[in-house]
Amino acid sequence: MKDTGIGKIALNLVLADEETSQIIKGQYENKGYSLVRGQVGTMDVKKIYAAVETAVFREDMIRENYHEEHALYHAISEAISGYFRGYVALDTVLRTTGLEFAVVRGELVVGGSSGGEWIAVVLYGFVGSPRRGFEHEAIGLGIQSI
Amino acid sequence: MKDTGIGKIALNLVLADEETSQIIKGQYENKGYSLVRGQVGTMDVKKIYAAVETAVFREDMIRENYHEEHALYHAISEAISGYFRGYVALDTVLRTTGLEFAVVRGELVVGGSSGGEWIAVVLYGFVGSPRRGFEHEAIGLGIQSI
Amino acid sequence: MKDTGIGKIALNLVLADEETSQIIKGQYENKGYSLVRGQVGTMDVKKIYAAVETAVFREDMIRENYHEEHALYHAISEAISGYFRGYVALDTVLRTTGLEFAVVRGELVVGGSSGGEWIAVVLYGFVGSPRRGFEHEAIGLGIQSI
Amino acid sequence: MKDTGIGKIALNLVLADEETSQIIKGQYENKGYSLVRGQVGTMDVKKIYAAVETAVFREDMIRENYHEEHALYHAISEAISGYFRGYVALDTVLRTTGLEFAVVRGELVVGGSSGGEWIAVVLYGFVGSPRRGFEHEAIGLGIQSI
Amino acid sequence: MKDTGIGKIALNLVLADEETSQIIKGQYENKGYSLVRGQVGTMDVKKIYAAVETAVFREDMIRENYHEEHALYHAISEAISGYFRGYVALDTVLRTTGLEFAVVRGELVVGGSSGGEWIAVVLYGFVGSPRRGFEHEAIGLGIQSI
Amino acid sequence: MKDTGIGKIALNLVLADEETSQIIKGQYENKGYSLVRGQVGTMDVKKIYAAVETAVFREDMIRENYHEEHALYHAISEAISGYFRGYVALDTVLRTTGLEFAVVRGELVVGGSSGGEWIAVVLYGFVGSPRRGFEHEAIGLGIQSI
Repeated sequence: MKDTGIGKIALNLVLADEETSQIIKGQYENKGYSLVRGQVGTMDVKKIYAAVETAVFREDMIRENYHEEHALYHAISEAISGYFRGYVALDTVLRTTGLEFAVVRGELVVGGSSGGEWIAVVLYGFVGSPRRGFEHEAIGLGIQSI
Repeated sequence: MKDTGIGKIALNLVLADEETSQIIKGQYENKGYSLVRGQVGTMDVKKIYAAVETAVFREDMIRENYHEEHALYHAISEAISGYFRGYVALDTVLRTTGLEFAVVRGELVVGGSSGGEWIAVVLYGFVGSPRRGFEHEAIGLGIQSI
Repeated sequence: MKDTGIGKIALNLVLADEETSQIIKGQYENKGYSLVRGQVGTMDVKKIYAAVETAVFREDMIRENYHEEHALYHAISEAISGYFRGYVALDTVLRTTGLEFAVVRGELVVGGSSGGEWIAVVLYGFVGSPRRGFEHEAIGLGIQSI
Repeated sequence: MKDTGIGKIALNLVLADEETSQIIKGQYENKGYSLVRGQVGTMDVKKIYAAVETAVFREDMIRENYHEEHALYHAISEAISGYFRGYVALDTVLRTTGLEFAVVRGELVVGGSSGGEWIAVVLYGFVGSPRRGFEHEAIGLGIQSI
Repeated sequence: MKDTGIGKIALNLVLADEETSQIIKGQYENKGYSLVRGQVGTMDVKKIYAAVETAVFREDMIRENYHEEHALYHAISEAISGYFRGYVALDTVLRTTGLEFAVVRGELVVGGSSGGEWIAVVLYGFVGSPRRGFEHEAIGLGIQSI
Repeated sequence: MKDTGIGKIALNLVLADEETSQIIKGQYENKGYSLVRGQVGTMDVKKIYAAVETAVFREDMIRENYHEEHALYHAISEAISGYFRGYVALDTVLRTTGLEFAVVRGELVVGGSSGGEWIAVVLYGFVGSPRRGFEHEAIGLGIQSI
């Protein structure tokens, strides 16, 4: 069986309720991972970038240099690309979104050694027209070496 | 708080271990959902389509007409688009994948009423070069009215 | 020979002059189809979505639930994707468009039975720089089960 | 009202039955246009390129140099991009197609003068799974200066 | 060995310092090419189109008709597509750019004969977050028959 | 003025003749960069990945772990995406290519400090139909933190 990957940790974190979420954080911080969770609602794609970056910087999960910021940016871009399944747009296509995100930093698989650290970004939420109930779920995961 | 969506049911099913997976199936079949889970390893994108469609037909989750097959096809396509984050290819780009999938059919949110049934397809697995350990996780979710 | 498809009905409707357009509407309404035609000029992609949705709702062609609105939205998205041939944008790329659209709802082929109804959206018009004569034609067709 | 564009000529040609098709050809050849029509059925995208190019060369619609071949190639590529609405693939995504195509060369609009000749390529047909009736229509139009 | 292509002329022009740039211009103007170089800094993709088109019109490199403007527009679009590697956006994805561009018109390869003239557009610069040093280089080249 | 970036080093290397190429290699190896150059001709996109990876491994430019291989893979993918300007395909679209590539590893800008090393991949060559002279130039650049 596959070992638990950094992506699965982030997926479990974003899908958990508040209480379980705290348990997951504690469990993986003990194994050397950093984890953060947040949320954002917007019709503007760049606010998703900004919300994730702000949460990561606030928790000191990455160092303030371009080398690490670039890896984070690419991980967010891949998560966004998956979340929108092909055409990245909200207001332009009459859509809005409310989503929760999780970011995890550490080894690629628990107990493994891939030659350095990785960062995983997950977005999970609802995309739809700006009208209650006219929306469905979406998910996106981006993983980068950092 | 948001009610549980059909996407989250499929995500929880695909991320669960074998035992929990059976519990989830039982729990949501009681609420009127159909659920199926399977796996496929390949360097050929069309085998992902084929594996999911075969599992769905075998479980009689969709009726044998083009109307329903078309909705399933689009749900798989969206899941694949999210899984590959922008460029859908495996062998062409020297990559291979091993993944598990889950398909769920029923209401868009548990206890809700959106005017008809929906189908959710999730793919979760590892994409990488055909070399042990040189791979990372990916996820994709597609949801269609059926 | 192929039977007449719902796409060809919509294409013929959008390409016809005003008078022929009325004849086509009458002819296919007698066979159980709903048809609507309209136009929009804009530098803003979301106005295309809005114009088509407004026309469809005004004619009561779809029921006011998310199940049907979602199918319409996907049909418009596919028509827009075809109309712009790869990169969906107007103002961002210094372009404007004036187009006519047609929407048809009914069986996939005249006299056929595919297990349910379908919706076809066609966009036909001119895309170009905001300068008289500096533009050429484009077309897009999206078809979804509804 | 808009004058008839080269795209509409090609669209009308491809949608017409055999007899009307001959009338359209005669009518626009008298106005200085070249027109050709053909068909292809395949699971292989490059056969669409090959079928259109072969028909165009056989009718001497373009000169045997790279300048004109390049314009034709781009017009076919845009038509294909529109026909597949975002992801250009057939066998890779378990799909097959049978289509008719039309190519027209001449002024951009009838009686107009845009500074040179143009070429329009239209593809119209059915895309679906390799199973009778499990398919729907698609259309694509590409226009290039030549 | 390959002869020097119009793309390499444009690449050398954009990468050269001011002085060498003048030498390259003189050298290829003697061989019948037209060359122009300029720069633009923006968070708005359409300003890249506008800056290149303005420079080209000011130097009378293309005739004021849609036939030639269309070829230029497509060459810019291809250069932009290459520059952004897949997803064309700046402000939307929290990015800004400062770039230099070069446009060259003439034969496809020096001393060759491909049946007409061609236009090459190169963009070279830095893309990144709006924060000093948080950016890296990008390049894009588009070539069209004109 | 901007300092020389890692991308410009790779661009100059790939565009240089054999002799100048050796001078560039020597000059930047003295500043702590690793540089490699090679070539590949193919109708198969994955052979471009394989040729670049093989050259890089042969020169020991990256360590044999997934962390570094992943960064290289992404840099190649971005270069390929730029080289093909939107649709990554060769045989599928009746095209072939002959190209030269350069890979450079080191600081993001000469004398700078961005918090770690980077890798730049450049592809430069001709793409066209498999017929002498029916081809034009293309370029692609991908840069990743490593």
